[in-house]
Amino acid sequence: MTVEKRPFVTKAQLDEIAKTHPTPFYLYDERGIRENAKKLKQAFSWNMGYKEYFAVKATPNPYILQILKEYGCGTDCSSATELMMSDAVGFSGHDIMFSSNDTPPEEFALADRLGAIINLDDITHIESLEQAIGHIPETISCRFNPGGVFTLSNGIMDNPGDAKYGMTEAQMVEAFTILAAKGAKEFGIHAFLASNTVTNEYYPELARVLFSLAVRLHEKTGVHIKFINLSGGIGIPYRPDQEPNDILVIGEGVRRVYEEILVPAGMGDVALCTELGRFMLGPYGVLVTKAIHEKHTYKEYIGVDACAVNLMRPAMYGAYHHITVMGKEDAPCDHKYDVTGSLCENNDKFAVDRMLPKIDMGDLLVIHDAGAHGFAMGYNYNGKLKSAELLLREDGSVQKIRRAETAKDYFATLDGCGMMQKYLK
Amino acid sequence: MTVEKRPFVTKAQLDEIAKTHPTPFYLYDERGIRENAKKLKQAFSWNMGYKEYFAVKATPNPYILQILKEYGCGTDCSSATELMMSDAVGFSGHDIMFSSNDTPPEEFALADRLGAIINLDDITHIESLEQAIGHIPETISCRFNPGGVFTLSNGIMDNPGDAKYGMTEAQMVEAFTILAAKGAKEFGIHAFLASNTVTNEYYPELARVLFSLAVRLHEKTGVHIKFINLSGGIGIPYRPDQEPNDILVIGEGVRRVYEEILVPAGMGDVALCTELGRFMLGPYGVLVTKAIHEKHTYKEYIGVDACAVNLMRPAMYGAYHHITVMGKEDAPCDHKYDVTGSLCENNDKFAVDRMLPKIDMGDLLVIHDAGAHGFAMGYNYNGKLKSAELLLREDGSVQKIRRAETAKDYFATLDGCGMMQKYLK
Repeated sequence: MTVEKRPFVTKAQLDEIAKTHPTPFYLYDERGIRENAKKLKQAFSWNMGYKEYFAVKATPNPYILQILKEYGCGTDCSSATELMMSDAVGFSGHDIMFSSNDTPPEEFALADRLGAIINLDDITHIESLEQAIGHIPETISCRFNPGGVFTLSNGIMDNPGDAKYGMTEAQMVEAFTILAAKGAKEFGIHAFLASNTVTNEYYPELARVLFSLAVRLHEKTGVHIKFINLSGGIGIPYRPDQEPNDILVIGEGVRRVYEEILVPAGMGDVALCTELGRFMLGPYGVLVTKAIHEKHTYKEYIGVDACAVNLMRPAMYGAYHHITVMGKEDAPCDHKYDVTGSLCENNDKFAVDRMLPKIDMGDLLVIHDAGAHGFAMGYNYNGKLKSAELLLREDGSVQKIRRAETAKDYFATLDGCGMMQKYLK
Repeated sequence: MTVEKRPFVTKAQLDEIAKTHPTPFYLYDERGIRENAKKLKQAFSWNMGYKEYFAVKATPNPYILQILKEYGCGTDCSSATELMMSDAVGFSGHDIMFSSNDTPPEEFALADRLGAIINLDDITHIESLEQAIGHIPETISCRFNPGGVFTLSNGIMDNPGDAKYGMTEAQMVEAFTILAAKGAKEFGIHAFLASNTVTNEYYPELARVLFSLAVRLHEKTGVHIKFINLSGGIGIPYRPDQEPNDILVIGEGVRRVYEEILVPAGMGDVALCTELGRFMLGPYGVLVTKAIHEKHTYKEYIGVDACAVNLMRPAMYGAYHHITVMGKEDAPCDHKYDVTGSLCENNDKFAVDRMLPKIDMGDLLVIHDAGAHGFAMGYNYNGKLKSAELLLREDGSVQKIRRAETAKDYFATLDGCGMMQKYLK
């Protein structure tokens, strides 16, 4: 089954929204977010203590975090501001996972003050952490990297051996031994082996690697493994011909491996965690933009009022994002366009040679699957400003959950500059 | 001749600076900026009316603009905030070139209010501009795209036919005719065909294309060509084995083509413009960062306190930036490292498999050639904050020309959110 890429909003709704909210803007779908979060919870309901730590980096917005909190989610943080936002929304203690790498001491300190679970990226971070906070927490996690190449049967592969993250197995043994000697009592294991996998196999395969490791670590070090963190990596189908993951199948796949490996080893009390970001928000956020120029030179161009500043993935990764021209959902895709933003960067194109219905000036375009790593990766290149974020509530109303940037925001770090005062008022 | 990549600052100076300015930070070299600007001016001194319009997008800092202003530079702007910054620094009228594409009406309006020269990217922009400002300015420029592939003898090539910018020749003829009928009196021609060329050939070859076009346009439309804008594209040698451009040779090369094509056509009054950014600032800015972690897993990693948030080019383009370990300029490069930042992104590496002297924790690293499209491309992914910018004055003193971002800046657009108030004070 492939997904038909239909926006979660109708043209009539969007026309109404655009009357009071100037394009471009992000629009999130509260209903979709809630239904998906519920389904994830259900998929792992067989595991006592299961918890999703939402990857804040994907969609760092307090209103989004607040919704996910209702479903028992915690937050996965990798920086000071993500910790602060989690704190502001009311996450605390073990509801926060701090999974950083190359971590500055002040971030370890803040994570510790909030009572977060700290996930160490490297064996040398034991010393860094101790120096930063003066002790080793009772509950601590370590990140594993199996090295080599990780391959799934459908050809998906990634190269953990080339990734900067995590420790070797020998280092995991050594780290757990040292940490136990320093007072740690409860241990976690974390690994991230592949990004945005669109297959139901990834988590079960990763679980097999981590569960076996957990058994060996327990045997070798005697420590109590409290949780295993499958991290992120469950992706979404950006392209309409991709079959989406079925989280219930994935949860069941992980359960089978759990029963096969952990239960017989007497480790049936291990809690599972996930740190999903893209899967939680990706499909439930879109970038809405308006066609403002059409240009015919050596190709056909449609210029829109959004640009890579609003959504960088196409420019940075050449990523595909599906586009719907609102009101023309069923029109034939018989025009080939490059859909471009206004940056002085030729990679500022939301689509290249994309077959779309004929686009007229003023048409609203919905750029799909921008709910994760979309707004979050915004920059200010060419001095362009970031857009607002809106939430389409379940009752159909719209809530502004972040205002658009202004020139004054853009100039804020020049507040010591006399010349700029005119634009800082 | 290849450049020996030596920092413009000594270890002793940098140690002193780092005492009061926490790493990471950008450091710009006032002396280098001035000497280079002087040389550029000299290279084109044969052309009456020559003007460099500094590409603000490269290094949008008012103090930098102020220095360049002393050498008669104007600014090349592509957005509202760049126009505002130019205005704040005291640029006005024809000292501002507004070269945008896919332009929103309010930006045309602001450019017009400041009296900037407007460079139209497309023939349809004549109508957009007229709608936005109610008239056609007396002086106006149009951007040309020759299509096809642009090749230089040393193999450098680019693909203008695939670029979103500019008009075809037929459109240029039509545009000039329409604009003249609507009251325009002085015309400019602009084109950008290749980025970051490290060859003395590019400008002369581009000049040949544009000068010939100018003659044909003048013949066909009868309009007065006031200026020809060679735009950017003069690059810098990021790698130590690259031979740098010689701007005096380039200027002389352009002069020869000018004498050959424009003068005989009776167009010896055409002024030349350039819109250099990288060439003006690239080598004169570095990112200074400290080694804070070393990690040995399947490779050797040095973690630094800067990340892709501070300099995105390696992550976005796989760009090479030379690195000097301060105090070890003459030590053998006998260690192979990946130099990584702290983002939860495996592409957050300033160098991969780079041979460097042995790095000790606390060592200061200078990441070269970050003066253009460095700070400017900063983002806030993972909630990481942008650094300060410092200027090393000619007298050896240091001036903070932009403060570092704070969490409050990062949360500024959430000022309507009750939950976040604690962090917005």
